[in-house]
Amino acid sequence: MLEYAIIKKLSAIVGKGNLFTDVVDNICYSYDAMNQKFIPDAIVFPSSAQEISEIIKLANSKKFPVIPRGAGTGFTGGSLAVSGGVVISLTKMNRILEIDQNNFTAEVEPGVITYDFQKAIEKLGLFYPPDPSSAKMCTLGGNVAECAGGPRGVKYGVTKDYVIGLEAVLPTGEIIHTGTKTIKGVVGYDLTKLIVGSEGTLAVVTKIRLRLLPKPAAKQTMLAFFQSVNDAAESVPAIIRKKVIPSALEFLDKSAIDCIRDKINETHIKIPKHTNAILIIEVDGKKLSDEVKSISETLHEQNVIKIFVAKNEEEQEGIWNVRRALSPVISSIAPKKINEDIAVPRDKIPETMRMIEDISDEYDLRIVTFGHAGDGNLHVNLMIDDSDEDESKRAEEGLRKLFKHVIALGGTLSGEHGVGIAKAPYIGLELSNVMVELMKNIKKTFDPNNILNPNKIFYSRSKNG
Amino acid sequence: MLEYAIIKKLSAIVGKGNLFTDVVDNICYSYDAMNQKFIPDAIVFPSSAQEISEIIKLANSKKFPVIPRGAGTGFTGGSLAVSGGVVISLTKMNRILEIDQNNFTAEVEPGVITYDFQKAIEKLGLFYPPDPSSAKMCTLGGNVAECAGGPRGVKYGVTKDYVIGLEAVLPTGEIIHTGTKTIKGVVGYDLTKLIVGSEGTLAVVTKIRLRLLPKPAAKQTMLAFFQSVNDAAESVPAIIRKKVIPSALEFLDKSAIDCIRDKINETHIKIPKHTNAILIIEVDGKKLSDEVKSISETLHEQNVIKIFVAKNEEEQEGIWNVRRALSPVISSIAPKKINEDIAVPRDKIPETMRMIEDISDEYDLRIVTFGHAGDGNLHVNLMIDDSDEDESKRAEEGLRKLFKHVIALGGTLSGEHGVGIAKAPYIGLELSNVMVELMKNIKKTFDPNNILNPNKIFYSRSKNG
Repeated sequence: MLEYAIIKKLSAIVGKGNLFTDVVDNICYSYDAMNQKFIPDAIVFPSSAQEISEIIKLANSKKFPVIPRGAGTGFTGGSLAVSGGVVISLTKMNRILEIDQNNFTAEVEPGVITYDFQKAIEKLGLFYPPDPSSAKMCTLGGNVAECAGGPRGVKYGVTKDYVIGLEAVLPTGEIIHTGTKTIKGVVGYDLTKLIVGSEGTLAVVTKIRLRLLPKPAAKQTMLAFFQSVNDAAESVPAIIRKKVIPSALEFLDKSAIDCIRDKINETHIKIPKHTNAILIIEVDGKKLSDEVKSISETLHEQNVIKIFVAKNEEEQEGIWNVRRALSPVISSIAPKKINEDIAVPRDKIPETMRMIEDISDEYDLRIVTFGHAGDGNLHVNLMIDDSDEDESKRAEEGLRKLFKHVIALGGTLSGEHGVGIAKAPYIGLELSNVMVELMKNIKKTFDPNNILNPNKIFYSRSKNG
Repeated sequence: MLEYAIIKKLSAIVGKGNLFTDVVDNICYSYDAMNQKFIPDAIVFPSSAQEISEIIKLANSKKFPVIPRGAGTGFTGGSLAVSGGVVISLTKMNRILEIDQNNFTAEVEPGVITYDFQKAIEKLGLFYPPDPSSAKMCTLGGNVAECAGGPRGVKYGVTKDYVIGLEAVLPTGEIIHTGTKTIKGVVGYDLTKLIVGSEGTLAVVTKIRLRLLPKPAAKQTMLAFFQSVNDAAESVPAIIRKKVIPSALEFLDKSAIDCIRDKINETHIKIPKHTNAILIIEVDGKKLSDEVKSISETLHEQNVIKIFVAKNEEEQEGIWNVRRALSPVISSIAPKKINEDIAVPRDKIPETMRMIEDISDEYDLRIVTFGHAGDGNLHVNLMIDDSDEDESKRAEEGLRKLFKHVIALGGTLSGEHGVGIAKAPYIGLELSNVMVELMKNIKKTFDPNNILNPNKIFYSRSKNG
């Protein structure tokens, strides 16, 4: 609980209407898509970097935590008030400040909804590739905090690759401006890319400068149906080995297909019998017939049952709507979904899929796997009943086994969801002690009083063994 | 001077044949392309991260500086032993360790020559875009240290955009492995991109994992001749406004053209009378006729005198050989070349060119300007006689005025050459005190004894005003 003097000061900074302290309100800001609850002591809705600076200075003098938060769609608890404190909601700082058509850059506030921004620039013939599945709800600020990815990573990279500058408030209250308006810039250390993906632990981002691309001239979207999971998985490196880089290359296993069978049936696309895996493949650029031909040949070599090529934009959108529905639909089929986010080198996908099947058998776990196969990023969902203690234990053991395999294959625990609290117990599997200490010291350099989003990433209860 | 015990230990670590302590040898490692001399006390040629770790631990216990060095082609003194100490030459660690054609990645040691690497992967149909003018001499490790750029930045970005993982020795001697083999990866802070461009002050890089692209199907190279510098400068944003992003878009002013007139005449390309500016434009991809047409139209709108389109690969290479000759040729026309490396948003190039002309007039300075106009990165070369005190003073005043203008236009002091010692006096013009302090603290976090490449970037003698 915050003392009254603090609440009064917060109110003076942001205005009475922009401060919630009632527990009924606070509960609304107590969870993200990971579905654990930590009720904060207050929520503020600042409207400027200056206000955030004042809040943070207050937090330093009174030593209470502040936790920046976008739309709360994260999967790893990065925006949760695990130690109480004041949530700084950035949702009211939601203006697109500039779209510069000469320099292909834009400047936005962190609360802009990702999809709204995509649409605003597409009208001008421009293109912002990062496209998390939650695009219609999540914010660009949240994307920056977690370094969000999405299906287009395989060709276009992730959020970090498009952030060229930031305005941010340090955990000590100073406002800094990092990066440049130019693509090149090497004066001093790259604080921009250090802050992107730091999950709101190094700074509160208050403005974001993004690099944009011209909108690709054309797009083709294909669905490929396989009887064998292995054939589908082998197709991924096989397509790219022929020097074709799709703009998206998504994988769905049998369980994932079952989850969205109804959604697919709503479109006029028919799923062939004996389908156990689907690839969604998109290419963009101009004159794409060569790419479609090369991909089709590869898929036939991998025993594809059927290939569906979308004939128009509506059919393309239909496919992606089905894909986007997957994550919410899955959540409804079991009391708890443990949503993992591993990434492996793409030629290790076949082996990883076999591993997941083995773990599913060995530990008797229902696992739904789908994801951005083109960049090796698989979302592995363990569907469990968390009131079943034995199942929960098996899930944890299975997960640990999976992670160890993934790292042995040259992969990572998290491709795009971040560590937050969900993966904090496991980072010792991937990062050496020296690395963790160095990162903790960087955190300390930024945040000597540990008031900004504390107890995330590095802080956990000894599951590292 | 190093005490004998240190020399003996160094010799034990790297072997007698891999240690130079004679001043005659040391002089060879005392300068870079900036042409200031700082003679180190010794040079070592380690062959592994383990050896470097031992050298650095020795440096910490005996408190002498160590300075990592590639080929010494840098422009800002980043690899110079400004406070004496031991130069760690990485040139003997020059193996290409892996080229992974499934995952489009490569792993190299830092001493690999950039051009050799480009050729090795091009044979396999792969492509590594960063292409500094010194590619035939410089090393990938040096490119990583300075975050090298080159002509292709406009479309493909810079070195940082291709480095996905590092093995590096910390200034405290520990060996770390950063990043992933995957494109996505968000576990912990991004130390990879923090180390890239840190000019050898945060770690000694011992292995580099690079992301590769498929080699573009085709390439077209054009030369455009202008009477008016302004028309040439206005062409840059005009071309890109039409959503065509060239793979290179290079600018040469009259003085630059004069410097390489002989070289151009060696080719069969004729420079039209009254030419005061040239653009070199390259597009890559497939079926490029649309791009060439769009660019040609734009250039005609900007009063181009003549457009030359290379008809084959040989002519393309000819053009780039002329361009690459520029930097060395310029060095020969005056006793001292102050080589600047500003970058501005590309629509500010016309204004920047006018500014440079004004400064040239006002301070009576000979200035040669050329560079990567597509990303706004201009190399502004002040040709001075440094024995002429008055001219040296005018040059410094002119430079300071230029820098202030560039920053006011949203630009940066250095697009790709780094700070080193050359630009250290000026970073206060671009970075706030808070930023500089934060960066110094990051340096201190990595390097508590300040033994790794000390007195670079942040350390200067009060020219910041």
